[in-house]
Amino acid sequence: MDRKELAVKIKAAAYLEGDFILSSGKRSKYYIDKYRFSTNPELLKAVAMEIAGRLPKGIDRIAGAELGAVPLAAAVALETGLPYVIVKKETKDYGTKKVIEGILNSGEKVILVEDIVTTAAQSIKAAKRLADSGAQVLGIIAVIDREEGGGANIAEAGFAYESLFTKTDLGI
Amino acid sequence: MDRKELAVKIKAAAYLEGDFILSSGKRSKYYIDKYRFSTNPELLKAVAMEIAGRLPKGIDRIAGAELGAVPLAAAVALETGLPYVIVKKETKDYGTKKVIEGILNSGEKVILVEDIVTTAAQSIKAAKRLADSGAQVLGIIAVIDREEGGGANIAEAGFAYESLFTKTDLGI
Repeated sequence: MDRKELAVKIKAAAYLEGDFILSSGKRSKYYIDKYRFSTNPELLKAVAMEIAGRLPKGIDRIAGAELGAVPLAAAVALETGLPYVIVKKETKDYGTKKVIEGILNSGEKVILVEDIVTTAAQSIKAAKRLADSGAQVLGIIAVIDREEGGGANIAEAGFAYESLFTKTDLGI
Repeated sequence: MDRKELAVKIKAAAYLEGDFILSSGKRSKYYIDKYRFSTNPELLKAVAMEIAGRLPKGIDRIAGAELGAVPLAAAVALETGLPYVIVKKETKDYGTKKVIEGILNSGEKVILVEDIVTTAAQSIKAAKRLADSGAQVLGIIAVIDREEGGGANIAEAGFAYESLFTKTDLGI
Protein backbone atom coordinates (compact mmCIF):
# COMPACT_ATOMS: atom_id res chain seq x y z
CA MET A 1 0.00 0.00 0.00
CA ASP A 2 1.27 3.52 -0.71
CA ARG A 3 1.85 6.20 1.89
CA LYS A 4 -1.44 8.00 1.22
CA GLU A 5 -3.49 4.81 1.56
CA LEU A 6 -1.60 3.97 4.76
CA ALA A 7 -2.45 7.40 6.22
CA VAL A 8 -6.14 6.87 5.45
CA LYS A 9 -6.13 3.37 6.95
CA ILE A 10 -4.27 4.44 10.09
CA LYS A 11 -6.73 7.25 10.70
CA ALA A 12 -9.70 4.95 10.09
CA ALA A 13 -8.30 2.37 12.49
CA ALA A 14 -6.91 4.51 15.27
CA TYR A 15 -8.46 7.98 15.46
CA LEU A 16 -10.87 8.46 18.36
CA GLU A 17 -12.74 11.57 19.46
CA GLY A 18 -13.64 12.27 23.09
CA ASP A 19 -12.04 13.70 26.21
CA PHE A 20 -8.63 12.17 26.87
CA ILE A 21 -5.70 12.73 29.18
CA LEU A 22 -2.47 11.92 27.37
CA SER A 23 0.61 10.35 28.95
CA SER A 24 2.16 13.84 28.94
CA GLY A 25 -0.65 14.97 31.26
CA LYS A 26 -2.19 17.16 28.53
CA ARG A 27 -5.93 16.98 27.86
CA SER A 28 -6.98 16.30 24.31
CA LYS A 29 -10.22 16.19 22.32
CA TYR A 30 -8.79 13.37 20.26
CA TYR A 31 -6.69 10.30 20.82
CA ILE A 32 -4.74 8.18 18.38
CA ASP A 33 -4.85 4.66 19.72
CA LYS A 34 -1.53 3.37 18.47
CA TYR A 35 -2.52 -0.19 19.34
CA ARG A 36 -5.32 -0.01 16.81
CA PHE A 37 -2.76 0.10 14.04
CA SER A 38 0.13 -1.80 15.63
CA THR A 39 -2.01 -4.86 16.40
CA ASN A 40 -3.31 -5.01 12.82
CA PRO A 41 -0.75 -7.03 10.84
CA GLU A 42 -1.49 -5.32 7.52
CA LEU A 43 -0.91 -1.86 9.00
CA LEU A 44 2.00 -2.98 11.18
CA LYS A 45 3.74 -4.45 8.15
CA ALA A 46 3.12 -1.32 6.06
CA VAL A 47 4.40 0.96 8.84
CA ALA A 48 7.49 -1.23 9.26
CA MET A 49 8.21 -1.03 5.53
CA GLU A 50 7.89 2.78 5.62
CA ILE A 51 10.28 3.01 8.57
CA ALA A 52 12.68 0.53 6.95
CA GLY A 53 12.84 2.76 3.88
CA ARG A 54 13.94 5.72 6.00
CA LEU A 55 16.67 4.02 8.00
CA PRO A 56 20.09 5.54 7.45
CA LYS A 57 22.75 3.24 6.02
CA GLY A 58 25.11 1.46 8.39
CA ILE A 59 22.91 1.21 11.44
CA ASP A 60 23.41 -1.76 13.72
CA ARG A 61 20.21 -1.97 15.65
CA ILE A 62 16.64 -0.74 16.11
CA ALA A 63 15.28 0.36 19.49
CA GLY A 64 11.74 0.77 20.75
CA ALA A 65 10.52 2.03 24.12
CA GLU A 66 8.12 0.01 26.25
CA LEU A 67 5.27 -0.58 25.56
CA GLY A 68 3.86 1.07 22.47
CA ALA A 69 6.94 0.96 20.27
CA VAL A 70 7.79 -2.69 20.95
CA PRO A 71 5.60 -4.11 18.15
CA LEU A 72 7.05 -1.48 15.78
CA ALA A 73 10.65 -2.31 16.69
CA ALA A 74 9.95 -6.04 16.31
CA ALA A 75 8.24 -5.51 12.95
CA VAL A 76 11.06 -3.31 11.63
CA ALA A 77 13.54 -5.94 12.81
CA LEU A 78 11.65 -8.67 10.94
CA GLU A 79 11.44 -6.42 7.87
CA THR A 80 15.15 -5.53 7.80
CA GLY A 81 16.89 -8.41 9.56
CA LEU A 82 18.39 -5.93 12.06
CA PRO A 83 18.18 -6.86 15.73
CA TYR A 84 16.46 -4.56 18.20
CA VAL A 85 16.41 -3.62 21.85
CA ILE A 86 13.57 -2.66 24.17
CA VAL A 87 14.03 0.39 26.38
CA LYS A 88 12.18 -0.40 29.60
CA LYS A 89 10.01 2.05 31.52
CA GLU A 90 11.52 1.03 34.83
CA THR A 91 13.87 -1.61 36.09
CA LYS A 92 12.17 -4.76 37.23
CA ASP A 93 13.41 -6.35 40.43
CA TYR A 94 13.78 -9.87 39.11
CA GLY A 95 15.63 -11.61 36.31
CA THR A 96 18.53 -9.70 34.89
CA LYS A 97 17.57 -6.22 36.21
CA LYS A 98 18.19 -4.34 32.99
CA VAL A 99 17.04 -0.99 31.65
CA ILE A 100 17.54 -2.24 28.12
CA GLU A 101 16.39 -5.69 27.03
CA GLY A 102 18.17 -7.45 24.21
CA ILE A 103 21.82 -7.01 23.38
CA LEU A 104 23.33 -3.55 22.93
CA ASN A 105 27.06 -3.29 22.30
CA SER A 106 28.99 -0.12 23.02
CA GLY A 107 29.25 2.22 20.05
CA GLU A 108 26.46 0.64 18.04
CA LYS A 109 24.49 2.90 15.73
CA VAL A 110 20.84 2.81 16.73
CA ILE A 111 17.58 4.28 15.45
CA LEU A 112 14.80 4.66 18.00
CA VAL A 113 11.36 3.99 16.57
CA GLU A 114 8.40 5.63 18.25
CA ASP A 115 4.64 5.32 17.84
CA ILE A 116 3.21 8.76 18.51
CA VAL A 117 5.07 11.92 19.44
CA THR A 118 3.30 14.64 21.42
CA THR A 119 5.83 16.51 23.58
CA ALA A 120 8.39 13.74 22.91
CA ALA A 121 9.30 13.56 26.61
CA GLN A 122 9.24 9.76 26.57
CA SER A 123 11.15 9.48 23.29
CA ILE A 124 13.88 11.81 24.55
CA LYS A 125 14.17 9.86 27.80
CA ALA A 126 14.50 6.60 25.86
CA ALA A 127 17.07 8.08 23.46
CA LYS A 128 19.12 9.33 26.42
CA ARG A 129 18.97 5.91 28.06
CA LEU A 130 20.31 4.38 24.87
CA ALA A 131 23.11 6.96 24.71
CA ASP A 132 23.90 6.40 28.40
CA SER A 133 24.14 2.69 27.61
CA GLY A 134 26.81 3.37 25.00
CA ALA A 135 24.75 3.57 21.80
CA GLN A 136 25.19 6.19 19.10
CA VAL A 137 21.61 7.32 18.64
CA LEU A 138 21.42 8.30 14.97
CA GLY A 139 17.85 9.51 15.27
CA ILE A 140 14.24 8.98 16.18
CA ILE A 141 11.61 7.92 13.63
CA ALA A 142 8.00 8.27 14.77
CA VAL A 143 4.89 6.99 13.04
CA ILE A 144 2.73 10.00 13.92
CA ASP A 145 3.62 13.49 15.11
CA ARG A 146 0.76 15.26 16.85
CA GLU A 147 2.44 18.64 16.16
CA GLU A 148 2.52 19.71 19.78
CA GLY A 149 6.17 20.66 20.14
CA GLY A 150 7.76 17.23 20.09
CA GLY A 151 9.97 17.92 17.09
CA ALA A 152 11.40 21.10 18.63
CA ASN A 153 12.01 19.33 21.95
CA ILE A 154 13.84 16.48 20.21
CA ALA A 155 16.00 18.96 18.26
CA GLU A 156 16.82 20.78 21.50
CA ALA A 157 17.86 17.47 23.05
CA GLY A 158 20.25 17.00 20.13
CA PHE A 159 18.70 14.10 18.25
CA ALA A 160 17.77 13.84 14.58
CA TYR A 161 14.07 13.27 14.04
CA GLU A 162 11.45 12.54 11.44
CA SER A 163 7.90 11.22 11.42
CA LEU A 164 6.06 9.18 8.79
CA PHE A 165 2.92 11.27 9.24
CA THR A 166 1.95 14.46 10.98
CA LYS A 167 -1.47 15.20 12.41
CA THR A 168 -1.97 17.37 9.31
CA ASP A 169 -1.06 14.49 6.98
CA LEU A 170 -3.78 12.42 8.63
CA GLY A 171 -6.35 15.18 8.12
CA ILE A 172 -6.93 15.66 11.85
CA MET B 1 15.63 -23.66 10.22
CA ASP B 2 14.28 -26.90 11.69
CA ARG B 3 13.06 -27.35 15.24
CA LYS B 4 16.28 -28.93 16.47
CA GLU B 5 18.43 -26.13 15.09
CA LEU B 6 16.06 -23.57 16.59
CA ALA B 7 16.41 -25.23 20.03
CA VAL B 8 20.20 -25.07 19.79
CA LYS B 9 20.15 -21.42 18.70
CA ILE B 10 17.67 -20.37 21.39
CA LYS B 11 19.80 -21.99 24.07
CA ALA B 12 22.98 -20.42 22.69
CA ALA B 13 21.34 -16.99 22.61
CA ALA B 14 19.32 -16.96 25.81
CA TYR B 15 20.57 -19.43 28.43
CA LEU B 16 22.38 -17.78 31.34
CA GLU B 17 23.82 -19.36 34.49
CA GLY B 18 23.98 -17.51 37.81
CA ASP B 19 21.78 -16.73 40.77
CA PHE B 20 18.41 -15.37 39.68
CA ILE B 21 15.07 -14.52 41.22
CA LEU B 22 12.28 -15.28 38.77
CA SER B 23 9.09 -13.27 38.40
CA SER B 24 7.32 -16.05 40.33
CA GLY B 25 9.58 -15.26 43.30
CA LYS B 26 11.44 -18.58 42.93
CA ARG B 27 15.24 -18.61 42.99
CA SER B 28 16.97 -20.27 40.07
CA LYS B 29 20.52 -21.24 39.11
CA TYR B 30 19.66 -20.49 35.51
CA TYR B 31 17.71 -17.91 33.59
CA ILE B 32 16.39 -17.97 30.06
CA ASP B 33 16.49 -14.39 28.85
CA LYS B 34 13.54 -14.41 26.49
CA TYR B 35 14.59 -11.06 25.06
CA ARG B 36 17.80 -12.62 23.78
CA PHE B 37 15.76 -14.62 21.31
CA SER B 38 12.78 -12.35 20.79
CA THR B 39 14.94 -9.36 19.80
CA ASN B 40 16.87 -11.43 17.26
CA PRO B 41 14.85 -11.31 14.02
CA GLU B 42 16.08 -14.69 12.74
CA LEU B 43 15.01 -16.44 15.96
CA LEU B 44 11.84 -14.38 16.34
CA LYS B 45 10.77 -15.31 12.81
CA ALA B 46 11.55 -19.00 13.35
CA VAL B 47 9.64 -19.06 16.66
CA ALA B 48 6.68 -17.31 15.02
CA MET B 49 6.64 -19.90 12.22
CA GLU B 50 6.69 -22.76 14.75
CA ILE B 51 3.79 -21.21 16.68
CA ALA B 52 1.89 -20.48 13.46
CA GLY B 53 2.14 -24.16 12.54
CA ARG B 54 0.49 -25.17 15.82
CA LEU B 55 -2.45 -22.77 15.73
CA PRO B 56 -5.81 -24.52 15.66
CA LYS B 57 -7.99 -23.83 12.64
CA GLY B 58 -10.61 -21.13 12.87
CA ILE B 59 -9.00 -18.84 15.39
CA ASP B 60 -9.71 -15.14 15.13
CA ARG B 61 -6.91 -13.53 17.03
CA ILE B 62 -3.57 -13.94 18.79
CA ALA B 63 -2.93 -12.55 22.27
CA GLY B 64 0.29 -11.83 24.13
CA ALA B 65 0.79 -10.57 27.67
CA GLU B 66 2.89 -7.51 28.43
CA LEU B 67 5.85 -7.33 28.05
CA GLY B 68 7.68 -10.47 27.05
CA ALA B 69 5.06 -11.98 24.77
CA VAL B 70 4.34 -8.79 22.81
CA PRO B 71 7.10 -9.33 20.20
CA LEU B 72 5.94 -12.95 19.84
CA ALA B 73 2.31 -11.97 19.33
CA ALA B 74 3.30 -9.30 16.80
CA ALA B 75 5.56 -11.73 14.92
CA VAL B 76 2.88 -14.46 14.82
CA ALA B 77 0.40 -11.84 13.58
CA LEU B 78 2.79 -10.81 10.79
CA GLU B 79 3.41 -14.47 9.95
CA THR B 80 -0.27 -15.44 9.79
CA GLY B 81 -2.13 -12.23 8.96
CA LEU B 82 -4.20 -12.65 12.13
CA PRO B 83 -4.62 -9.58 14.34
CA TYR B 84 -3.52 -9.67 17.98
CA VAL B 85 -4.21 -8.06 21.31
CA ILE B 86 -1.92 -7.14 24.18
CA VAL B 87 -2.97 -8.12 27.70
CA LYS B 88 -1.70 -5.34 29.95
CA LYS B 89 -0.07 -5.85 33.34
CA GLU B 90 -2.09 -3.08 34.90
CA THR B 91 -4.45 -0.40 33.73
CA LYS B 92 -2.78 2.86 32.89
CA ASP B 93 -4.47 6.02 34.07
CA TYR B 94 -4.37 7.88 30.77
CA GLY B 95 -5.57 7.32 27.24
CA THR B 96 -8.27 4.73 26.84
CA LYS B 97 -7.81 2.98 30.23
CA LYS B 98 -7.95 -0.56 28.90
CA VAL B 99 -6.80 -3.91 30.25
CA ILE B 100 -6.56 -5.22 26.70
CA GLU B 101 -5.00 -3.18 23.90
CA GLY B 102 -6.11 -3.74 20.34
CA ILE B 103 -9.57 -4.85 19.33
CA LEU B 104 -11.19 -7.90 20.91
CA ASN B 105 -14.75 -8.76 19.92
CA SER B 106 -17.00 -10.86 22.11
CA GLY B 107 -16.88 -14.57 21.33
CA GLU B 108 -13.66 -14.44 19.32
CA LYS B 109 -11.45 -17.52 19.40
CA VAL B 110 -8.05 -16.56 20.74
CA ILE B 111 -4.71 -18.30 21.32
CA LEU B 112 -2.47 -16.77 23.98
CA VAL B 113 1.21 -16.95 23.11
CA GLU B 114 3.70 -16.95 25.96
CA ASP B 115 7.47 -16.73 26.13
CA ILE B 116 8.53 -18.84 29.09
CA VAL B 117 6.33 -20.81 31.45
CA THR B 118 7.53 -21.53 34.98
CA THR B 119 4.53 -21.75 37.34
CA ALA B 120 2.33 -20.21 34.61
CA ALA B 121 0.76 -17.79 37.10
CA GLN B 122 1.09 -14.89 34.65
CA SER B 123 -0.19 -16.90 31.68
CA ILE B 124 -3.24 -18.06 33.61
CA LYS B 125 -3.98 -14.51 34.75
CA ALA B 126 -3.73 -13.26 31.16
CA ALA B 127 -5.91 -16.10 29.83
CA LYS B 128 -8.56 -15.32 32.47
CA ARG B 129 -8.48 -11.65 31.56
CA LEU B 130 -9.12 -12.57 27.95
CA ALA B 131 -11.99 -14.84 28.95
CA ASP B 132 -13.40 -12.11 31.23
CA SER B 133 -13.26 -9.78 28.22
CA GLY B 134 -15.45 -12.14 26.21
CA ALA B 135 -12.85 -14.18 24.30
CA GLN B 136 -12.98 -17.95 23.88
CA VAL B 137 -9.45 -18.88 24.89
CA LEU B 138 -8.65 -21.95 22.82
CA GLY B 139 -5.30 -22.45 24.45
CA ILE B 140 -1.88 -21.22 25.46
CA ILE B 141 1.23 -21.86 23.36
CA ALA B 142 4.55 -21.16 25.09
CA VAL B 143 7.99 -21.07 23.55
CA ILE B 144 9.76 -22.68 26.51
CA ASP B 145 8.43 -24.67 29.46
CA ARG B 146 10.83 -24.75 32.41
CA GLU B 147 9.06 -27.89 33.73
CA GLU B 148 8.26 -26.42 37.12
CA GLY B 149 4.55 -27.17 37.33
CA GLY B 150 3.21 -24.66 34.82
CA GLY B 151 1.57 -27.26 32.61
CA ALA B 152 -0.34 -28.80 35.52
CA ASN B 153 -1.42 -25.38 36.77
CA ILE B 154 -2.72 -24.41 33.33
CA ALA B 155 -4.64 -27.70 33.05
CA GLU B 156 -6.15 -27.10 36.48
CA ALA B 157 -7.24 -23.62 35.34
CA GLY B 158 -9.03 -25.28 32.42
CA PHE B 159 -6.96 -24.14 29.45
CA ALA B 160 -5.35 -26.22 26.70
CA TYR B 161 -1.60 -25.87 26.61
CA GLU B 162 1.49 -26.79 24.67
CA SER B 163 5.07 -25.55 24.47
CA LEU B 164 7.47 -25.53 21.54
CA PHE B 165 10.33 -26.63 23.77
CA THR B 166 10.76 -27.93 27.28
CA LYS B 167 13.81 -27.37 29.44
CA THR B 168 14.72 -30.98 28.61
CA ASP B 169 14.43 -30.31 24.85
CA LEU B 170 16.94 -27.47 25.25
CA GLY B 171 19.37 -29.78 27.10
CA ILE B 172 19.24 -27.72 30.31
